[in-house]
Amino acid sequence: MIKVGIIGATGYVGCELLRLLLNHPKIEIGAISSVSFEGQEIDSIYKNFFNKTNLICENMNEVVKKCDVIFTALPHGLSEDIAKEVIDNKKICIDLGADFRLSDENEYKFWYGKEFSEPELHKKSVYGLPELNKEKIKTSHLIANPGCYPTSIELGLMPLLKNSLIDTNNIICDSKSGTTGAGRSLSLGTHFPEENESFAPYKIGDHRHTPEIEEILSFIANEKVNVTFTPHLLPINRGILSTIYCTPKDNIDLEYIHKLYNDFYKDAPFVHILPLGEIAAIKNIRLSNNCHISLHLNHRKNQIIIISTIDNMIKGAAGQAIQNMNLILGFNEDDGLKIISPAF
Amino acid sequence: MIKVGIIGATGYVGCELLRLLLNHPKIEIGAISSVSFEGQEIDSIYKNFFNKTNLICENMNEVVKKCDVIFTALPHGLSEDIAKEVIDNKKICIDLGADFRLSDENEYKFWYGKEFSEPELHKKSVYGLPELNKEKIKTSHLIANPGCYPTSIELGLMPLLKNSLIDTNNIICDSKSGTTGAGRSLSLGTHFPEENESFAPYKIGDHRHTPEIEEILSFIANEKVNVTFTPHLLPINRGILSTIYCTPKDNIDLEYIHKLYNDFYKDAPFVHILPLGEIAAIKNIRLSNNCHISLHLNHRKNQIIIISTIDNMIKGAAGQAIQNMNLILGFNEDDGLKIISPAF
Amino acid sequence: MIKVGIIGATGYVGCELLRLLLNHPKIEIGAISSVSFEGQEIDSIYKNFFNKTNLICENMNEVVKKCDVIFTALPHGLSEDIAKEVIDNKKICIDLGADFRLSDENEYKFWYGKEFSEPELHKKSVYGLPELNKEKIKTSHLIANPGCYPTSIELGLMPLLKNSLIDTNNIICDSKSGTTGAGRSLSLGTHFPEENESFAPYKIGDHRHTPEIEEILSFIANEKVNVTFTPHLLPINRGILSTIYCTPKDNIDLEYIHKLYNDFYKDAPFVHILPLGEIAAIKNIRLSNNCHISLHLNHRKNQIIIISTIDNMIKGAAGQAIQNMNLILGFNEDDGLKIISPAF
Amino acid sequence: MIKVGIIGATGYVGCELLRLLLNHPKIEIGAISSVSFEGQEIDSIYKNFFNKTNLICENMNEVVKKCDVIFTALPHGLSEDIAKEVIDNKKICIDLGADFRLSDENEYKFWYGKEFSEPELHKKSVYGLPELNKEKIKTSHLIANPGCYPTSIELGLMPLLKNSLIDTNNIICDSKSGTTGAGRSLSLGTHFPEENESFAPYKIGDHRHTPEIEEILSFIANEKVNVTFTPHLLPINRGILSTIYCTPKDNIDLEYIHKLYNDFYKDAPFVHILPLGEIAAIKNIRLSNNCHISLHLNHRKNQIIIISTIDNMIKGAAGQAIQNMNLILGFNEDDGLKIISPAF
Repeated sequence: MIKVGIIGATGYVGCELLRLLLNHPKIEIGAISSVSFEGQEIDSIYKNFFNKTNLICENMNEVVKKCDVIFTALPHGLSEDIAKEVIDNKKICIDLGADFRLSDENEYKFWYGKEFSEPELHKKSVYGLPELNKEKIKTSHLIANPGCYPTSIELGLMPLLKNSLIDTNNIICDSKSGTTGAGRSLSLGTHFPEENESFAPYKIGDHRHTPEIEEILSFIANEKVNVTFTPHLLPINRGILSTIYCTPKDNIDLEYIHKLYNDFYKDAPFVHILPLGEIAAIKNIRLSNNCHISLHLNHRKNQIIIISTIDNMIKGAAGQAIQNMNLILGFNEDDGLKIISPAF
Repeated sequence: MIKVGIIGATGYVGCELLRLLLNHPKIEIGAISSVSFEGQEIDSIYKNFFNKTNLICENMNEVVKKCDVIFTALPHGLSEDIAKEVIDNKKICIDLGADFRLSDENEYKFWYGKEFSEPELHKKSVYGLPELNKEKIKTSHLIANPGCYPTSIELGLMPLLKNSLIDTNNIICDSKSGTTGAGRSLSLGTHFPEENESFAPYKIGDHRHTPEIEEILSFIANEKVNVTFTPHLLPINRGILSTIYCTPKDNIDLEYIHKLYNDFYKDAPFVHILPLGEIAAIKNIRLSNNCHISLHLNHRKNQIIIISTIDNMIKGAAGQAIQNMNLILGFNEDDGLKIISPAF
Repeated sequence: MIKVGIIGATGYVGCELLRLLLNHPKIEIGAISSVSFEGQEIDSIYKNFFNKTNLICENMNEVVKKCDVIFTALPHGLSEDIAKEVIDNKKICIDLGADFRLSDENEYKFWYGKEFSEPELHKKSVYGLPELNKEKIKTSHLIANPGCYPTSIELGLMPLLKNSLIDTNNIICDSKSGTTGAGRSLSLGTHFPEENESFAPYKIGDHRHTPEIEEILSFIANEKVNVTFTPHLLPINRGILSTIYCTPKDNIDLEYIHKLYNDFYKDAPFVHILPLGEIAAIKNIRLSNNCHISLHLNHRKNQIIIISTIDNMIKGAAGQAIQNMNLILGFNEDDGLKIISPAF
Repeated sequence: MIKVGIIGATGYVGCELLRLLLNHPKIEIGAISSVSFEGQEIDSIYKNFFNKTNLICENMNEVVKKCDVIFTALPHGLSEDIAKEVIDNKKICIDLGADFRLSDENEYKFWYGKEFSEPELHKKSVYGLPELNKEKIKTSHLIANPGCYPTSIELGLMPLLKNSLIDTNNIICDSKSGTTGAGRSLSLGTHFPEENESFAPYKIGDHRHTPEIEEILSFIANEKVNVTFTPHLLPINRGILSTIYCTPKDNIDLEYIHKLYNDFYKDAPFVHILPLGEIAAIKNIRLSNNCHISLHLNHRKNQIIIISTIDNMIKGAAGQAIQNMNLILGFNEDDGLKIISPAF
């Protein structure tokens, strides 16, 4: 059986990966690692694993050695070296950090303050949005798993941009995310009494997902796309909902767009276009790998409003990474990802 | 001492009015009324009033008879007749419903499906946004208290529109509100397990606050203003935060705008412009009559992003109504409204 | 393949059953029914099922006709007639309501105001707590699936009572439940703004789970057990945590009790005794079929404090019903129930 | 005007004190201090104070020098020295920490690992529960402001214990608190994604409020009282609800107890006994200085169940401290504390 490993298993993304992978029918966990908790049992760190696994956090070298597929769930800047080793060993690397998401090194330098240490590797990496790059993913050994906000926005805009139907200079993405997106690191912003019953944007005009969104949307549109992207923090655990405003080049019929989206995503098992008149909501995709999209017009202005919602930890991180693994290994795209969202 | 009454005291807005008025230093409550609970003690309906008042819900006629200032907190369509009687009796009416907010009867008919029953009265009414109409309010006997979303948006845009600095055809208002805005009526959308841990927009392109926002912004700008307004429901009790996107006519310096806002609101005791670099958040105005505004630029596009946040039940309803009463009666504008938001 | 049906599929318990059963590897859904929504597609009622199933709510007779195993998720008093028909047809009935939980008809009459309409059927029914009645369940065709509060309390006390180690007249069960326990019916108590940021007990000394708890605990202890049971409503969606206070007959060593519990539950795949020093929490079992139990002493009084926590919708309802089905059909006890709780 | 100061103004209790004192009609703030934020404006630390005060955190010596009444809101062990200086200067000290709550030095040593550094001072201090010690408080210059849990429990049990009506060896206090009780220090337990949608007890049998509860209850009962006290953390910001179980010595009529409580608290402006049949809830006292108590019997066991609920930050800390100040200074007991809880 294929052996899978997680480097960075004790962050939220790593923990979610492990949770989903433990129930994946076609792989087994070969090893997990954590710098902070090396030598400790994972179920002493996250009690939801109590009696469900005996895995111990090892050194990351053990993960590379013991596994065929290696997921890296690390802060940016730490994955390149590991990816190199994995690729050199003819294994598969799926990186859930930001290291390989941008192909433009200048943008990377601008937003992350750092050059590519392995420029050759970047050329081999594929941006792991299956609804965009399915065939490339299948033959790749190095996946840049997309960011959570970008996933919600790119899925929401792809059919319009592919078909050159909207003004690429007037797109506004007002996104709202649950707090798991901020990870397990403690901060006043995620201290319960300060986040609960509050709501606010953060990093206005300054969030590192902006260049990723723009690069991918530009690639899709085959022209330069600018967005205004404003992330907000919701006092809930999981889920991203992006409210996307864009301007059609010509008058557009909503039913036409609806059909376009349905056709575009007809082979995408996780992207679901709601019937016209319905509105996408976080509760219906929470804890699943699904993306719900609903389409709306402001009739008085011929403006399109797209609601796109995913679980930031699953379709926005761990679930999408597993979807990429499934594609690479020739499994069913939804193996281990069939969970239906609890409605409540 | 001035006697004040509330018609519709058992809805959320009426209850909040009563709560604030019971601690107002310069008035006393003359009577309250409720159709659904006539004859019942208010503290049997809302236990927070237990031992704090002996008021009983009377018939609305008693309120008009016994009081000098009458607050009407009713569903739309029910306040006109009462207002007429109050005005005919030379008393003061502050309406927290929608009946007098729109001056354009056609718009009212379009959005509310009903004609004005007292057109003359509408001419006498003043839109009760003190930061816009302070002098008119002082001499009025009939106040149309603004809606909650419009208050947050109008305060956020007023200085820019007054000074003709932005494109009036490209304004997007992405607003998020706590659930008290939906009132005490039960619905699946506010059933705890369906709203908690969820988030979604509602009434996209279709919310009745839209014509109010556009009419008032047009009045401020002295030209026709169109907005795209999308309300969302937050899984919290109180607070509205509006993220407003607009396009400056010319390149604009953020410090210039910041100074403009500070000057504009220098005599407004409840509107506070945060220092540049800080971001307005619901937690800092919750349960107070304050409005916090923060100003931002997307430098890469010369786009202005305004964050404007209020407590929907206070500055967005009951508090603003009391502020209007204070102005009419010649009290200090902040009498009974000095509450500082608990930060947690 | 075995065909399974749900009568009452549009309540919260029915919806949760459907959600879990759709991913069960060894059965298929034959039919579902709902009185309120007959003829409607389930995914028009619960949008989490969008594109995941085409099931339509049929008449309950269709469910009985088409299926081999019938789950009844109905208000009390409605399951007896259906159960009779199912049993008469040599099929299997798992009742998630209260109709068969009490074997003492007088108690049933006292608490539910109604006699048994099918007394013979009651003799055939088995109380479906697998950790207590596994062998009986395997050969039964009629299961009374336990209540949510009773499950948490019975699992928490069973090892002590089986071994006659505590005073059976001085047991206090202080239980706290998420709001899904109240179902989908609207009420002020579960109206978001009234439940959020609040907390309170309800039905003190008066909850219908009391006789179930006492009857089962008495059966376990083989002597009359009285409890004081106080349920509280938590402002969260899911989870029950019971804090159980009891008095040992003799001085007892906590390590001895801990070993006793571990031995008692060594073959129970879903009951997990935390290491001494750790404390059970809802977050670690939420959305899974697991029960976490932690054991504590008040050393200064020789009093035992047991914390027992489950997901009220899963181990407290739908999950346990599936566990019972698995046992009856000879499946692995955890088929379809391997979900690990998300820690966040 | 009396000058009041706060030492430790940037913790949650200090911040709440400042918020309430800024609206107190009969005092002014002389100075505030903070070790961590010395020299900084308070409104740069807590934005709810923006434009509401220009106070700067000074050195604590300035507070003692400039003020007549000094509130100390500090971790235990830090108040004794300051209190000495305040008292030596013939000023008034109200300590919101634990330093003066226990009169038994051995207990203090056992629970806090430290001896009294100023034993003489302890003899002068008065336990500041006004409903117990009103006359002593009025003439004291050194107040030990009670803990939050103890306040809820002592108010809930006082009338029964004063009248020797219950077994003093069989009292169980199952208490649940909002997260502000844990203060502003960051921890995984109050990290939003780990606390939200969860619930659990903590420090079972081990919480430092235990000796305070027992010492005060013993003083009230005039005999040794033991309690089992289990605190739990609620995923809400504010409020404590204690469910208290006790056994009457004789059969007791609930109406008799209800009258006893009403009589006992007839002069207490903040303690309110709900009518029989109603149940106390956090939402009705949240953000006020009120305590709601409801009384219940488990008829089948002659056991009394008392529900006592307060806002942990107000009646459980800052509000009670101001109530004590009012008594000492001869103000109305409720000056500055008339806030009515928002019901939603």
